[in-house]
Amino acid sequence: MALIRSVFQDELDSVSQSLVDLCEKVAGTIQKATQSLLTSDLRLAEEIISSDIAIDDFQHDLDARIIDIVARQQPVASDLRALATALRMSADLERMGDLAHHIAKVTRIRHPQSAIPAEFYLMFESLGQAAEKIARKTAVVINTRNTEMALEVEKDDDEIDDLHRQLITALVAPNWKHGVETAVDLTLLGRYYERYADHAVSVSRRVFFLVTGKFA
Amino acid sequence: MALIRSVFQDELDSVSQSLVDLCEKVAGTIQKATQSLLTSDLRLAEEIISSDIAIDDFQHDLDARIIDIVARQQPVASDLRALATALRMSADLERMGDLAHHIAKVTRIRHPQSAIPAEFYLMFESLGQAAEKIARKTAVVINTRNTEMALEVEKDDDEIDDLHRQLITALVAPNWKHGVETAVDLTLLGRYYERYADHAVSVSRRVFFLVTGKFA
Repeated sequence: MALIRSVFQDELDSVSQSLVDLCEKVAGTIQKATQSLLTSDLRLAEEIISSDIAIDDFQHDLDARIIDIVARQQPVASDLRALATALRMSADLERMGDLAHHIAKVTRIRHPQSAIPAEFYLMFESLGQAAEKIARKTAVVINTRNTEMALEVEKDDDEIDDLHRQLITALVAPNWKHGVETAVDLTLLGRYYERYADHAVSVSRRVFFLVTGKFA
Repeated sequence: MALIRSVFQDELDSVSQSLVDLCEKVAGTIQKATQSLLTSDLRLAEEIISSDIAIDDFQHDLDARIIDIVARQQPVASDLRALATALRMSADLERMGDLAHHIAKVTRIRHPQSAIPAEFYLMFESLGQAAEKIARKTAVVINTRNTEMALEVEKDDDEIDDLHRQLITALVAPNWKHGVETAVDLTLLGRYYERYADHAVSVSRRVFFLVTGKFA
């Protein structure tokens, strides 16, 4: 029995490690997507767009593994909850990959022009850095189950929300001079960063709940 | 043993019925959200916004029930896959509720003005009807596991995508005369309808996959 538990524990650890890996992957993707946006780098944008399938496949395999573990080990109570939560986390992480991919698509559609006017570079650089930071921290939260850090992620999300509000304020200001097409692009881009961060927060909250049994 | 299987089957049927109920709920919500948008009806918008918690609670209870069934019945193979899929469907359906709720929030923030210019009423009426239709059909797909109807949902989604493209084209046309704030609102509204329909398609695809073992 001790041996079986130990194999099972290894399997749980391996699921957790895969979630960490997936989170690191999508942190890298948002970093690159932001870079493609700031430098109008078509090759980088294409690279991100074509790598989205690898993220989807990774998630697909991970989900199949999780269900296989449940079928074979028939876990109950906290182990079963952890595995059900892992399924939800993988869905959040996969969606973060999609959103980074959407950002790269905006780079591509506007190339060789820049999707964002020069005076918004700094704002999008900050959005990209904040989004990457939140994803990297979420990877640590999954790995260490550090609940204090899970709460920090919520605060980091406030930074994204602030930047997003600043963006919308700039868009609707009477002195807006970049036309409606750019406003539409920036509205969607802002939304993608905001949703990306929301999913990271959701992952951190799930870890918090698993560890404490309470909602953050 | 026959008795135990039968109780289990009742439990599976009850999960399926709850998914149908949740899908019908969010179909009603998008219908009302669209109506609030077209008529600038603040009371209706408030009603939708406050009812979102009930949808979240419903999903929360359903998920807890699903996990409890897995813990007690220890299903394997297709039954386990059906329950794992039910967890994912409930997440899609809950998100559809969120998106309808976002639409109602746009109604509220622009009240007593209308968020959408008069010449866009017809387009948003069509978006609302198409989104409701796709959700109602998805409820039937969950209930009947009709794979042909699941494929129809994919086609219905093309209608939403067409309307969404028409919307973006109108926004970026040189003769746009409603200012950037309205363009930002319409961009986000269009995105909410599009994502709402995407989640319905995702639910129908999951049913298709459960029944056929193939991706639609």
